[in-house]
Parts: sequence; structure tokens; C-alpha cells
Amino acid sequence: MNNAFTNEEYTVMINAALNQAVPLCGDERDAVTKAMRYSLANGGKRVRPVLLLEFNRVCGGNVTNALPLACAIEMIHTYSLIHDDLPCMDDDDFRRGKPSCHKQFGEATALLAGDGLLTLAFSVAAKAPLPPENLLPCLAVLADTAGYRGMIGGQTMDLQHEDKAVDAELLRATDRLKTGQLICAACRIGCLAAGAAEEQVAAADAYAESIGLAFQIVDDLLDITGTAEELGKPIGSDAEKNKSTYPALLGLDESRRLVQELTQQAINALSCFDENSFLIGFAEKLANRTN
Amino acid sequence: MNNAFTNEEYTVMINAALNQAVPLCGDERDAVTKAMRYSLANGGKRVRPVLLLEFNRVCGGNVTNALPLACAIEMIHTYSLIHDDLPCMDDDDFRRGKPSCHKQFGEATALLAGDGLLTLAFSVAAKAPLPPENLLPCLAVLADTAGYRGMIGGQTMDLQHEDKAVDAELLRATDRLKTGQLICAACRIGCLAAGAAEEQVAAADAYAESIGLAFQIVDDLLDITGTAEELGKPIGSDAEKNKSTYPALLGLDESRRLVQELTQQAINALSCFDENSFLIGFAEKLANRTN
Repeated sequence: MNNAFTNEEYTVMINAALNQAVPLCGDERDAVTKAMRYSLANGGKRVRPVLLLEFNRVCGGNVTNALPLACAIEMIHTYSLIHDDLPCMDDDDFRRGKPSCHKQFGEATALLAGDGLLTLAFSVAAKAPLPPENLLPCLAVLADTAGYRGMIGGQTMDLQHEDKAVDAELLRATDRLKTGQLICAACRIGCLAAGAAEEQVAAADAYAESIGLAFQIVDDLLDITGTAEELGKPIGSDAEKNKSTYPALLGLDESRRLVQELTQQAINALSCFDENSFLIGFAEKLANRTN
Repeated sequence: MNNAFTNEEYTVMINAALNQAVPLCGDERDAVTKAMRYSLANGGKRVRPVLLLEFNRVCGGNVTNALPLACAIEMIHTYSLIHDDLPCMDDDDFRRGKPSCHKQFGEATALLAGDGLLTLAFSVAAKAPLPPENLLPCLAVLADTAGYRGMIGGQTMDLQHEDKAVDAELLRATDRLKTGQLICAACRIGCLAAGAAEEQVAAADAYAESIGLAFQIVDDLLDITGTAEELGKPIGSDAEKNKSTYPALLGLDESRRLVQELTQQAINALSCFDENSFLIGFAEKLANRTN
């Protein structure tokens, strides 16, 4: 088994790689390059690339070779946030305590920066130093989970639900696509890049499914019980926008219980991996996070 | 050498493949699926996929195996038009005589439809039945030419030039990226998918470079000398928007002469291909088109 890394070590590697992945052009194009770099550097927890790298490691993969794929999935996540924040979508002025991309650079540049990051994700991924027969399925998973049947499908469903009552089942179906699919992609691509066995890929899917939903419920809980300082954005925005949320549909206590249950399910799915302590701790940390 | 096809035969194949490539989901996601299908079906001349398939054929490739790549490049072209038409970009209400995507489906759905087509392009391309060692370079070219150093870079430069005088050199540099890169990708990917020799790839690049610029100059000319009926959009829109164009910078006669010169250069580049009559005719047809 390859060397273990801490979350901090992974994050440092990912941030360094992302910083190198979008070089300036030195000409007028850099209006968009700077916007891409701004949003990419305004980093969150790097949940998806960390999961990708760790699943890759526990399946016997090499972190350096998988790093381009980790960058690619973070680029796709970042592009989706830029486009989600645009006035015609959620119209959010802030992202992680800083002006959102279109507030900083204007709408047209933010639109193109999102397009640029989505496109660059596939450029970076297609050049990962991995066996072509391992790499091509990773690219297909990346495109399928991020696409109109996956993440974009979830965003589309979300649009239909504006100012409309949604039950827990439909909310879950939406979140499974909108946030769940890319988390699933991260875990699955980590395995596929290492040429993992089918059983391992299935276990990664099960883990991802559970932490993906738990992640979303915690997001909803923090919008009620968190603080603006910790979150880097105003709290109460879901209620203000009349958004259906798990706490609103299930209550605070039941939502918290569900997070614990899902986290336990995620941990149970890891039994086929010899080294699973990082992934166990990661699931627990996501469940108990305050931002 | 594989069977020759006519432009009409290629177009029929491409349209049929595109129609199958975006199946409905049968649920709320189809708000975006329908928008994607609408824009993809509102077909233009299919210049890029036809070029891809014919370069593939003259390099010894099989048309069926290359068809997913042809679809992918048309999807990228279509997404770029959807996003270009948005209010924050060119704010165009019509595209090829029909309401543009956001006029028909609303801004948010059009944004997501563009994102969906860009993402689907890579999904479809990654599954092309080609040897992985031929396919991966095709994917890299697709992402690089469409990205922030390529097509998106050109769109970004275009944004900087709004209401600003631009000389012929800068206009050419912009168009080389904005429209030239994807035409170049089409020709180059056609060759790479067939495992073509370097000399053939270089010849395809030279051909693409010349017809790409000629194509843009003809576009500018038609905006002055064409008719709204033939073009499916109002004429005179460049002048109205104070856009720098080749005819404005070089004059009508010099622009027309340049189109002929570039077309001859493109034809000259084809000497290394045994069967080049289709590509010669294609370059001439693009130069003499009326829409």
C-alpha cells in the first residue's frame, strides 16, 4: 500500500496543482484566465479531489498520476458554482465570504470563466499519466456525472422547484443528482484510475451515496443553526428563498439523526478496503462540520 | 480507401447521430434536454463534423467509428452559440431564423443547456469506438481548442473589443481563436482518429487555418451584402454594433480577394492526400456561400 497522507497534505498538493493548471496567457485572454484562477483559488474544503486521491490510494494507485483527475473534478465543481451564482440562476453576490465571480469580473467574463473551467477539466484529465484503458472510463464517468442526466439534471430540477412545495423524496432525488453525482464521480474515478476491482468500485459508490446525502442535509442544517462568520455567507438564505430543505420537511432532530445514520452506512460500506481509517474519519468530519 | 460520401450524405448521418445522442430522461430534467435538442436540431451547415469525417476518411478511418467525435464537435459549436446569444454576451434574439435558446426556454435553462452540450460532447467523444491511444489525443485537442487558450480565449478577446477600434491584425488574432480553433480541431481530430501521419496532420492544420479565416471574412461580407432571408438573421448587425470587420478595415474588394487567396492556399495544402476532391470543393463552396 502507498504512503498515507493527511487531509492537510492532500489539500496542499491539490492547491499547488490547481495553481499550476491555469497558466496566464500574457494577453487579452487573461481577462478570463484571472476570473478562472480567482474562483479556483477561493477554495473550499476540496472534498471531491481529496476523496478521489484517497480512493485511488487505497486501491493501490499513485497520487501523482491521479492528481490531474483530482484537479479536473475540482474545476467542474468550481464552474458549477460560478454558473449557479449568476443572476439568471441563484443570483448570489458572495461565495465563501468573497464576491462571487460575476460580482468581481462581470457577468460575461464569469460565464466564460465557468465554460473555461469545465473545458479545462477535460483537457487536464485527458493528459493524466495513466494507462489509456484506465483513463478513458474516468473521462466518461466525469462527463456523465457532470452532465444533463447528472449534476446539470439536478440543477434543472432545482429550477423547476422554485417557489414550489417539494416533498422529501423529490428533494432527495434532486440532491442525488445536483450534489451527489459529483461526489460519486470523485470516489469512483479514484478507484477506476487505479484499475480497482468491481467490488471496490461498488463500495465506493455506496460510500459516496451516503456521504453525499449527509453532506446536503448538513448544509441545510448549517443554514439554520450555523453562523455567518463560520459559513462565509449569510445564514437563513434557504428560508428566505422558500427553498424546501430537509430540516423544514423532517424537523431538526430527525435531520440530525439521518446524518448520523447515513454516516454509519458510509462507514459500513468501507469494509472491503484494508486501509479505511482516513475515509472513516472523513465521513465523520463531514457530518460534524460547522462550515 | 473507404467509400466516398457526398456532403448531403454526411449531413444526414450527422443529423441522425445528433438526434440519438441526447435522449430524453422522462422527468423534470427534460426542461434542459429539450433545450439542448432544440438548439442542436436548429442545424447549420454542419461544417465542423463534415470536415472531421472527411479528413478521417482520407486518412483511412472508418466513418462509423469517427461519428461520435463529429457529434462532439458540433455539440461544442452549438453550446458556444447558445452562450454567445445570452443577454450578457451578444444578446441575440434569433439564431438561424428561429428564437435563440434563451428566448425560447429562458436564460437559466439556456445557460444549463449550453453547459449540458459542452459536457455531453466529452461523454460522447470518450465512448467513440476507437483505439484508446488514438482517442485520447483527440479528446485533448477538443478540450484545448475549445478552452480558454482557444475558442473561449477568442470570445474573451472579442468582449474586450466592444465599442473599440481594432486593427486587422488583432481582428485576425481574435478570429483565429474564436472561430478558427474549432475548425482546426475538426480537421486535426479527423486525422488523429485515423492514426494519420504527422505530415497529414500538418496539412490538415494548414487547410483549416486558411478556410477558417476565409469563413469569417465571408461571414462579415454577408452581413453587408447578403439578404436577411438567406441568412435567417437581420443584416447590418455588425455595423449596428460597431464591430470591427474585415470589409470595414480592408474594403469589400480586398476582402473578397483575400477570400479567394485563402481558399487557394487551403487547396494547395491538400496535395499530400490522394483523394482531395471533396475537400477542394468544400473550400470553394464555403468561399462562395450566400448564407
